[in-house]
Order: sequence, then C-alpha cells, then structure tokens
Amino acid sequence: MPRECSIANALEVVGEKWSLLAMREVFWGVRRFDQIARNTGASRDILAARLRKLVEVGLLERVPYEEHPPRYEYVLTEAGRGLHAVLLTLMDWGDRYVTRGEPPTVWEHDCGQVLEPQVTCAHCARPVETDGMRLIRAHRV
Amino acid sequence: MPRECSIANALEVVGEKWSLLAMREVFWGVRRFDQIARNTGASRDILAARLRKLVEVGLLERVPYEEHPPRYEYVLTEAGRGLHAVLLTLMDWGDRYVTRGEPPTVWEHDCGQVLEPQVTCAHCARPVETDGMRLIRAHRV
Repeated sequence: MPRECSIANALEVVGEKWSLLAMREVFWGVRRFDQIARNTGASRDILAARLRKLVEVGLLERVPYEEHPPRYEYVLTEAGRGLHAVLLTLMDWGDRYVTRGEPPTVWEHDCGQVLEPQVTCAHCARPVETDGMRLIRAHRV
Repeated sequence: MPRECSIANALEVVGEKWSLLAMREVFWGVRRFDQIARNTGASRDILAARLRKLVEVGLLERVPYEEHPPRYEYVLTEAGRGLHAVLLTLMDWGDRYVTRGEPPTVWEHDCGQVLEPQVTCAHCARPVETDGMRLIRAHRV
C-alpha cells in the first residue's frame, strides 16, 4: 500500500502541469478559455478536460458573463486561492534552478520590496529547513 | 506563444505526480528503488523512467552503496533540496483542502511547535497574499 499523504492527495487533484498552468492564469486575472489556452499553450481538448476537473473538484467556479450566446469565465474558489502558496514556491524554485538567465517575471510585494518568497513556520517565523522538522504522527509511514 | 514563466519551466521538470512523490520519498530518507516504488505505489517502469529523468535534470544523484552486485541509492542535489518548499506548501494545501479528516502526517518544527508552513516575504516577513503582489517586470505577459 502506498503511504497516506496529503502530497499524494494534492497531486491527485493538481498533479498535472496543465492544471497548474490554468490555475496560474486565473490567479493572474485571465479568466476566459481562449486566453487561458493561448497563455498556457495547452491544446483546447486537454485544457477543456482540465478545467472541467478543476471545477468538479472545487478549485474553480464557472460563472456566466454573457447570456446570448452563453459564455463563461473561471474564478477561484477558496480552495483554489489556497494554491497561491504552491504556485509561489514553484515559481521561486523554477527561477532558481530551472530557468536559464533572469527570472521571466519579477514581482513586488506590497511592502515595496522585490518579492522573494520563503516558507516559514507560522509559530516561530523562521524558515523551515529540510532537516528542521520531524514526523510526530502518521497513519502509516 | 505561451508565456515565459518559471512555473511552466519548473513543471517541465517536476510536473508529473510520480516525480514529486519520488522526491518526497528521498526527502523522507527513503533512497532505494524498491522502497520508493512501494511507498509511492508507482509502477516500476514509470518510476524507473521518472528517476532517470530526475537524475538527468540534476535533482537527484545516483550513488553506489554496494559493489557486488552493483546497487545504487538516490540522494538529493542542491536543486533537489530546493524542492522542499514546494512539497511543504503542497502538503499543507492537501491537508487543508483535499484530504478528508485529519492530516495523514503531522510534523514538529525544530522550534517545538506543530509545523504549520506559510509563505512569507523574505524582506518584511509577512505572509504573501494573493492580492499582495504585483508584476513589475516580465518578458511577455
């Protein structure tokens, strides 16, 4: 039996690159199918399937913005907004270790500094290091 | 043309669930093929292909631990260790929005509190909110 693990559970929902790229677009304010297709480079069939699943699992809502003909756009649910942290850490890791040259996008945090995201402990506020955590409870590990 | 973006670049490397689950195992100290296969539930063919790619792109190293017969284990490179932040945010999101019931694994941070990871700004140390950042430079957005 594979481990019980929320990483595996999360990846059942978003463990496919077109899903996360579609979510990225909605975070960046792009809400319509044609634009999401263009900005991600996904094929229309794959994108339609991924968006359908993201709505089914409750990360996006499909909201009408025109009646004749009926047209829809995608907006984030609360669970969808929660993915922000994942996309930020993925972008930061990609900037550091995958992209060659300068980061393709540079962001300013609302404190006025260039955004450099880090994962910290909500209690002590220090960065969480690989060897700075230990398992204290598990269904099966 | 799709956007230039480090999220997309990162997903070219780890945008497939078995890759991230294999990385999770190595983070948790599981370094050998058979154990990684068992703990992830990946088929051996798929896992072998994913591990080969993770070595090729420089996230894992394959290190001999026995000579007769030759046997290898997988260890994290610096780029591989950098994925820790991504796995933590993915686990936290899965705990909150995907897993039903209690989190399958609970961790203690080395400050002594139950680990609750959050993404903060390295400059001001406040959490980075969805609407708390703005794009200041991009190749094409």
